[in-house]
Amino acid sequence: MQLSPAIQQLIQALRILPSVGQKSAQRMAFQLLERNRDGAIELAEALQQAVAKVGHCEVCRTLSETSECSICAQVKRRDTGLLCIVETPADVLAIEQTGQFQGCYFVLMGHLSPLDGIGPEDIGLDKLAERFAQEPIQEVILATNPTVEGEATAHFIAELAEQHQIVTSRIAHGVPVGGELEYVDQATLGHAFSGRKSFLKNSS
Amino acid sequence: MQLSPAIQQLIQALRILPSVGQKSAQRMAFQLLERNRDGAIELAEALQQAVAKVGHCEVCRTLSETSECSICAQVKRRDTGLLCIVETPADVLAIEQTGQFQGCYFVLMGHLSPLDGIGPEDIGLDKLAERFAQEPIQEVILATNPTVEGEATAHFIAELAEQHQIVTSRIAHGVPVGGELEYVDQATLGHAFSGRKSFLKNSS
Ligand SMILES: [Zn+2]
Ligand SMILES: [Zn+2]
Repeated sequence: MQLSPAIQQLIQALRILPSVGQKSAQRMAFQLLERNRDGAIELAEALQQAVAKVGHCEVCRTLSETSECSICAQVKRRDTGLLCIVETPADVLAIEQTGQFQGCYFVLMGHLSPLDGIGPEDIGLDKLAERFAQEPIQEVILATNPTVEGEATAHFIAELAEQHQIVTSRIAHGVPVGGELEYVDQATLGHAFSGRKSFLKNSS
Repeated sequence: MQLSPAIQQLIQALRILPSVGQKSAQRMAFQLLERNRDGAIELAEALQQAVAKVGHCEVCRTLSETSECSICAQVKRRDTGLLCIVETPADVLAIEQTGQFQGCYFVLMGHLSPLDGIGPEDIGLDKLAERFAQEPIQEVILATNPTVEGEATAHFIAELAEQHQIVTSRIAHGVPVGGELEYVDQATLGHAFSGRKSFLKNSS
């Protein structure tokens, strides 16, 4: 059976979404066409609006509709002198949801990956170096992912910060809160051991 | 943190897709905006095209861009005199993929559900009765879902067919091929027993 070309094209287009395979795309297309055509039109408009309006914050590079994002625009956050380096806008959202961090971010939109031809300028490190030179930054918190590329990127940025006499720190990696040792992967457990802290005396 | 309004609207709009929650919608929105803006525009256009072009087949009610779908348009399929009744276009696709059925379909686009105010005309049974009266249909194969509503709908249609002296059959329900008895639900196992067939003599 040949599906209608317009339905086939819709199924194909839905497959660009992350973790949507042929079966899910079919289910989505049928549900939209059978039961939610208004929703389909709204989604189409939201996609076009977002692509048209959303660019990058000129200060931290995150996705933003305005030249300065809602975080960079807050003087009291910039005044903390804390700058957290993350790989993606989703990481910013995750950290914001903890409510633990009151400083600003710099969003790499990726990580160093020489094999893929992704060098320092592709992840905005030229702009970051400028900020290191011009702003009164007290501490750079390296929150890149605990992967080979994320670690290499963190090291590269740490050296850049050192050239500007800025203190750097790396977020702690270890056993997730609520996680059971048995189910934690080797690398994480290794981090948990090498990053162990003395227990009874309230050491930092 | 406030996400950009256009990003928030996109996340909200993506949640109309089946089994897409807040987290998945966020991941989709970020991925599209960070890495696949062309894909986002293509998806928007595919949605608009599909909504504008896809209506229903005038003969079988399935989703179609043309007044007669690609199955109803085949004389040799209509000539079989076999009419399979299903609830949704996805069911048509599933049956077509088996390659076992060469007849035509009638797609209810739902099932009878008096509590939700869905009566015979809402699922096209007036049109089906007309076809029963006018076409040389040999057998109606009831392939509605094995749910309470699907069974009730099958019974209703069987009685309609009887009024036109048309033979009806119901697709077999039982243990899925390759399935293990242990993991099959009670209702299915019940069907498998009540629908048992004699084994050694090649009974139909
Ligand atoms: Zn910003
Ligand atoms: Zn048709």
